[in-house]
Amino acid sequence: MNRVVVLGVSLKFEGRDIISVKDFSRKEIDYILKISQAMEPLATKGSDMLKGKILATLFYEPSTRTRLSFEAAMHKLGGSAIGFAEAEIASVKKGENLADTIRVVENYADVIALRHPLEGAARLAAEFSKVPIMNGGSGAGEHPTQALLDLYTIMKEKGKISGLKIALAGDLRYGRTVHSLAYALSLYNIELYLVSPELLRMRREVLETIREKIPVTTRTSLEKVVSQVDVLYVTRIQKERFPDPAEYAKIKGSCKITLETLNRAKEDLIILHPLPRVDEISAEVDGTSYARYFQQVWNGIVVRMTLLALILGAIK
Amino acid sequence: MNRVVVLGVSLKFEGRDIISVKDFSRKEIDYILKISQAMEPLATKGSDMLKGKILATLFYEPSTRTRLSFEAAMHKLGGSAIGFAEAEIASVKKGENLADTIRVVENYADVIALRHPLEGAARLAAEFSKVPIMNGGSGAGEHPTQALLDLYTIMKEKGKISGLKIALAGDLRYGRTVHSLAYALSLYNIELYLVSPELLRMRREVLETIREKIPVTTRTSLEKVVSQVDVLYVTRIQKERFPDPAEYAKIKGSCKITLETLNRAKEDLIILHPLPRVDEISAEVDGTSYARYFQQVWNGIVVRMTLLALILGAIK
Amino acid sequence: MNRVVVLGVSLKFEGRDIISVKDFSRKEIDYILKISQAMEPLATKGSDMLKGKILATLFYEPSTRTRLSFEAAMHKLGGSAIGFAEAEIASVKKGENLADTIRVVENYADVIALRHPLEGAARLAAEFSKVPIMNGGSGAGEHPTQALLDLYTIMKEKGKISGLKIALAGDLRYGRTVHSLAYALSLYNIELYLVSPELLRMRREVLETIREKIPVTTRTSLEKVVSQVDVLYVTRIQKERFPDPAEYAKIKGSCKITLETLNRAKEDLIILHPLPRVDEISAEVDGTSYARYFQQVWNGIVVRMTLLALILGAIK
Repeated sequence: MNRVVVLGVSLKFEGRDIISVKDFSRKEIDYILKISQAMEPLATKGSDMLKGKILATLFYEPSTRTRLSFEAAMHKLGGSAIGFAEAEIASVKKGENLADTIRVVENYADVIALRHPLEGAARLAAEFSKVPIMNGGSGAGEHPTQALLDLYTIMKEKGKISGLKIALAGDLRYGRTVHSLAYALSLYNIELYLVSPELLRMRREVLETIREKIPVTTRTSLEKVVSQVDVLYVTRIQKERFPDPAEYAKIKGSCKITLETLNRAKEDLIILHPLPRVDEISAEVDGTSYARYFQQVWNGIVVRMTLLALILGAIK
Repeated sequence: MNRVVVLGVSLKFEGRDIISVKDFSRKEIDYILKISQAMEPLATKGSDMLKGKILATLFYEPSTRTRLSFEAAMHKLGGSAIGFAEAEIASVKKGENLADTIRVVENYADVIALRHPLEGAARLAAEFSKVPIMNGGSGAGEHPTQALLDLYTIMKEKGKISGLKIALAGDLRYGRTVHSLAYALSLYNIELYLVSPELLRMRREVLETIREKIPVTTRTSLEKVVSQVDVLYVTRIQKERFPDPAEYAKIKGSCKITLETLNRAKEDLIILHPLPRVDEISAEVDGTSYARYFQQVWNGIVVRMTLLALILGAIK
Repeated sequence: MNRVVVLGVSLKFEGRDIISVKDFSRKEIDYILKISQAMEPLATKGSDMLKGKILATLFYEPSTRTRLSFEAAMHKLGGSAIGFAEAEIASVKKGENLADTIRVVENYADVIALRHPLEGAARLAAEFSKVPIMNGGSGAGEHPTQALLDLYTIMKEKGKISGLKIALAGDLRYGRTVHSLAYALSLYNIELYLVSPELLRMRREVLETIREKIPVTTRTSLEKVVSQVDVLYVTRIQKERFPDPAEYAKIKGSCKITLETLNRAKEDLIILHPLPRVDEISAEVDGTSYARYFQQVWNGIVVRMTLLALILGAIK
């Protein structure tokens, strides 16, 4: 029962699951961002805050990036990590259901990071688990730690979130990170631009929810948007989503960020991307002052350290 | 040369391999169970007992559960773990034999946990290894750490082993855990019931050995057994074992533990299962006072911590 | 900026990549060998020298042996390890290029050990990485940590390198370890014998480089060489290299080291092999005083500990 007081409210994180950004209030998110700032030096020099604690990474679909980020965060806090990186090598092969796997692994670990192809898997796991579940991405639905690190990156780079004009571009339909992020951004006073091909436009239920809170403009091309925004968040468009390869080729070109695209960008525009990228951002952009997508990766470590420390009760 | 004295006998564990329960005397097993009791608080709060020591988990067939249990046990004692989880990613691909692999890995690690599809693999490994080998399951033959954690669970739940009536049910032919367990149980004054379809009855060599020591009753149905026993140990029946799917379907149903099956069970019956289960125990049983199969998982950590600490000489 | 002074010269290792033995001067290699000697007791009893540091092992092709050696070295210095063991489970599946992967992983780890099927991959990675890259084998080209452990083994066993007659036998064309080793040996005053079937003879560019520095004799049979040399370094001949299976069978037999082959060997000959071996060295040789290939594995841990400690600035 560890409670922290920020801005006059009492917050409780110990023992909590991290399933969806929707489970967190604006005040709680602000607190996570504030603690993350304080966590930065520990991310550099290490800590013994979680010595003796074990993280289990149960990754039912491959995501080297997210898995290694969770494990590095745990190691930097002095803890250790166990887990598996593919469903094929898991008990799953023998037909075990997720609930049983969770009730087994909760005996091995103090916290479980779960990645699963099905929406709702993390929520189900949390219902059965005695130890906190961290959703490392489930289905096309949610990726809350990614959304929190995205917010942290914006806050760190811009000094604020409210007041900004932010564009989400690319696959807004299947990309799980943009769903979590759009919801989280709607807690702040921002103007949101959603840029995607028709086929990949933002899911209606997400759109309806955020439209009640903030002004949202939808576009099918970046052209007019890029000069207006402070933050451009780009996501990968997957070839498999298109029935017709010709259509994919056409759209791919129109969504690509190049130096030319950025001609009329604000001087202090920042470009984010959850990575991996394929062709969405030209390599020539990497060296510009706009590019922040690799710094995002570092921020992911910091935010995951914060979340681990909070839910395991190491920060009171 | 660390010797411990229990009940007036001198016991030596440091440097020993854990290949088969048959290598352990009743006194040695009792000692392991007693140390495990003392190990419980360390399993909760962690320890530095094996700081600087390395466990190698060489798993030539997938067993997430057993591998993670060994690794968690090592981490909880302050040690670290390296290894592989599939033969495919091992040197095996290049044609290396097991003896060479062991003579390589013994240079990396202080103890090796080996899982292998062939019976006798762990014994062979122990002959070549300078460091202790722990058998994490080899072929259909032996799974000694599972048998020891099963015994520990019975002892912890019942306060004793001798004097109990214990049923082993399911696949007694191919299930490696029941072979090790049946042998270990025969060292105690128990009454054993073996319940399985004809096709999957206990192997003759195991049956003959244990019949010399304890009373054994064989049955093809749980019906009359369930009301008589104190402990019901259930194992998974694999579809692949049956040439005729119809026969499998019939047998599967007849072996399943449901609330109805347990109607006439003793009030203090406990049900164990090495997991993963598929259909053998209905989910409705999980919430009853009989179910102990998830607690078994925790006990596995405790017993493996005990064995690691003993054979690495950390307990004297 | 840590500099060490050996033999009157100033050496700098902190922050350096380990890509090719060609990047190291004779003085630097001598220094690595000397520090390795001092590292031996820490390899046995462990150390906290790299506590809080993280090694990432990015293995795009399987090499259990090398990966576990790097990880064990890191653990023995008190650090931790994260990584992947197969390209398939990496972001690669999603089409990410190596440069991006490196710019992500450098945020997770203090040092990266990379194994990659393409020559030049490690060099490319080093160009993009902010943290040191250790080449764990790239293409058929280089395997510098293997070459350094080979040198260390010779020094440890013979007390010197210069003055020795050394034969490299087997696949000298595709075996990456022999390319790195031949180059490193050419920095010492040795006589080199290259023994291989015509099809697998040493690459011309390597041969030309080392011939400028040391006397080199090429042979297609071990017969006359074995009685003359102090060190016999054997490598695996892979069946896949031969278009005609019959030719492979013939050659395989002619290259095999048996007790008979060793009849006229010097009494203090030592036999090395980077392992895994398949048929090149008969098992009957393992028990002789010549065999040093399993000790080589231990030396690999020691040398990799040395390199990690040096490039991470723990040894000044």
